[in-house]
Amino acid sequence: MSEVVSKTTLAKGTTGILAGLTTEQKNDALLTMAEALRSESVSIIAANREDLERGRQNGTPESLLDRLALDEARIQVIAEGLQQIAALPDPVGDTLETLKRPNGLSIEKIRVPLGVIGIIYEARPNVTVDAAGLCLKTGNAVVLRGGSSALSSNRRIVEVLHAALAGTAMPPHALQLIEDPNRSSVDEMLKLNGLLDVIIPRGGSSLIQNVVMNATVPVIETGAGICHTYLDASAQPRMAQEISLNAKAQRPSVCNAMETLLVHRDYAREQLLPLAEAFRDVHVELRGCAETVALVPWALPATLEDYATEYNDYILNIKVVSGTEEAMQHIAQYGTQHSECIVTEDSGNAARFLQEMDAAVVYHNASTRFTDGFEFGFGAEIGISTQKLHARGPMGLPALTSTKYKIYGTGQIRG
Amino acid sequence: MSEVVSKTTLAKGTTGILAGLTTEQKNDALLTMAEALRSESVSIIAANREDLERGRQNGTPESLLDRLALDEARIQVIAEGLQQIAALPDPVGDTLETLKRPNGLSIEKIRVPLGVIGIIYEARPNVTVDAAGLCLKTGNAVVLRGGSSALSSNRRIVEVLHAALAGTAMPPHALQLIEDPNRSSVDEMLKLNGLLDVIIPRGGSSLIQNVVMNATVPVIETGAGICHTYLDASAQPRMAQEISLNAKAQRPSVCNAMETLLVHRDYAREQLLPLAEAFRDVHVELRGCAETVALVPWALPATLEDYATEYNDYILNIKVVSGTEEAMQHIAQYGTQHSECIVTEDSGNAARFLQEMDAAVVYHNASTRFTDGFEFGFGAEIGISTQKLHARGPMGLPALTSTKYKIYGTGQIRG
Repeated sequence: MSEVVSKTTLAKGTTGILAGLTTEQKNDALLTMAEALRSESVSIIAANREDLERGRQNGTPESLLDRLALDEARIQVIAEGLQQIAALPDPVGDTLETLKRPNGLSIEKIRVPLGVIGIIYEARPNVTVDAAGLCLKTGNAVVLRGGSSALSSNRRIVEVLHAALAGTAMPPHALQLIEDPNRSSVDEMLKLNGLLDVIIPRGGSSLIQNVVMNATVPVIETGAGICHTYLDASAQPRMAQEISLNAKAQRPSVCNAMETLLVHRDYAREQLLPLAEAFRDVHVELRGCAETVALVPWALPATLEDYATEYNDYILNIKVVSGTEEAMQHIAQYGTQHSECIVTEDSGNAARFLQEMDAAVVYHNASTRFTDGFEFGFGAEIGISTQKLHARGPMGLPALTSTKYKIYGTGQIRG
Repeated sequence: MSEVVSKTTLAKGTTGILAGLTTEQKNDALLTMAEALRSESVSIIAANREDLERGRQNGTPESLLDRLALDEARIQVIAEGLQQIAALPDPVGDTLETLKRPNGLSIEKIRVPLGVIGIIYEARPNVTVDAAGLCLKTGNAVVLRGGSSALSSNRRIVEVLHAALAGTAMPPHALQLIEDPNRSSVDEMLKLNGLLDVIIPRGGSSLIQNVVMNATVPVIETGAGICHTYLDASAQPRMAQEISLNAKAQRPSVCNAMETLLVHRDYAREQLLPLAEAFRDVHVELRGCAETVALVPWALPATLEDYATEYNDYILNIKVVSGTEEAMQHIAQYGTQHSECIVTEDSGNAARFLQEMDAAVVYHNASTRFTDGFEFGFGAEIGISTQKLHARGPMGLPALTSTKYKIYGTGQIRG
């Protein structure tokens, strides 16, 4: 039996116990995990150093090594994350609906755990703890398959968490780490129908596409964001500039950052040049349509491929459009249904954009950077769903649950 | 461009209009469709006759031909179904949640259509109308791929519906029928990410398994039901018999019918023989474990494969167990997480079974045959989901919707 099958089978064996744990028992496990991470920080940092050294030998760029690196402060933040998850309300067991039928049947719709969740992700070892915490809080077993570059860190973290769980009501086998660094272990997880109830990929678009295109297990697609901001003719210039700069440059590496700015022709005439200067001041490279290049001499010509690219970097496409209609058409063609914004003082255009634009989150006069579970007040986020089934947009704890119907009868049969 | 791509592209082109239709406009379209089916019943029955004749030439069994056959009465029922769908509340546009954030952002979670739904199904032409009605009511475009044995009927029905829609606010292209009878047209639909938002298979287990194992488009898995009834030691004999007979024999061909009866050893001693006689009276073949065969001489020995079989027929497995624990273990091993029932007067055993049994619907003292959208009071049913994502159990209109977040700001940016 492969590592993937044997560990997932162990995880599945715990789902009955997990579904029956009280909120207090689950929170106690999370707090014990947090405590263990703190008291074992030295050994975790030592394991992390192995990953960093191997990364340096393999020529990993410093920016990626920085995301991989753990120190005392980062471990404190990770442990605090578990405490925050413990403090959140537990959705499991909630009664969502009660139906009383004319034949006397009483039907209750109850929130239950999904079962066994597979998480496939990349380098950052904080995801190991965060995903484990969110899944266990919702009574799910979890099978983690992290990137090989963080294997030593992840292995040590899971050892520490297993030892911590051994003293709690939470069965340690509910948390599994796949250590096989070969791609075949991912492929195997994707086809594990019957053992895995859902797979959630967290990472770059190639990782996500591989999961979506090859999984037979149900998937919650997360992540890819080609987000747009449309500045309408009546946009307030100061607000338009603040929102645009924030959406692009406050943190360009994330999925809710803007990749393309659409500008109404009437607005562009006076306002595009000062806006472009503001982008130049924060070192954002501009690529534009012909009209943009005519107004902003240092802008490079944008290609159709540019419009379809998630840069995650200090690069921005700019396109001049004739109005809301053309802006929405461009977004429909190039967007990923993630987060789209209109900046306007025209309430009719705003209402139309919010109604018709098909995306997880649509904004009037606010930065797309708010598409985030914490900013929504969920207190946690397992990812941002860009699919339409099950969950859409930022996913908090309820996205990690399913439901079941309990029916209470007194001998009813169907006529 | 293939038929599948060209027709699905046409369907997708209507989603913006569909999402903006009022409930009245959608209901008007459904009622116009119902009227058209009634007034065109002669031509529909003539087309159906072609299917029936082709079926007879191909040696199709009479039972299948009966499911395929249309007459005036059946067309009346189909048209009434559309009227019933029109009378249901429209979930689209409902505000599910309103969040007011400390920074002044106002976040609304709104129900929206899924987009384009693919339905892959088998012979019965009533599914053509029913699926079209449910999808259009919820503002979704729909691409239907029915079985080739009903192609003439389906083609004529869709012609009639298209002509009816031409006089309404609903764009006719929102309804598409794939006529290519080759399996390759199904395969093509399964991979149509970006054009199809979800695929719902309706039919037998091989059809469903093909969809689940080969689709890259998100799927809502429906159908397969190996359902169990467990008679506990304290079960009331009369209730136990009524529920068991109803679950097995009232309509054995459907997914919520019982396939295996589990009986507590103490209950079996006195009660299994009279119960088996009652099953014999309604011509149910019995296959049992060794203890069953010892108590019921005419029962055949059951194999492990029998326990894993959805008979959909007048055949029942019987297994004697030591109690709730062994019953739940058997169900966990052989069940399909569809519908499971305990008959008992012991409230502790009932509570434990309903809490721990992992299935879409769990029953105390009622027939599993109630797992049905109409019996739940949904007024409609697109199918019974046996997966845990998005929807679980009988699916009414809300299962055909997604959500989006509308965010209203006054210039908020992220700090």
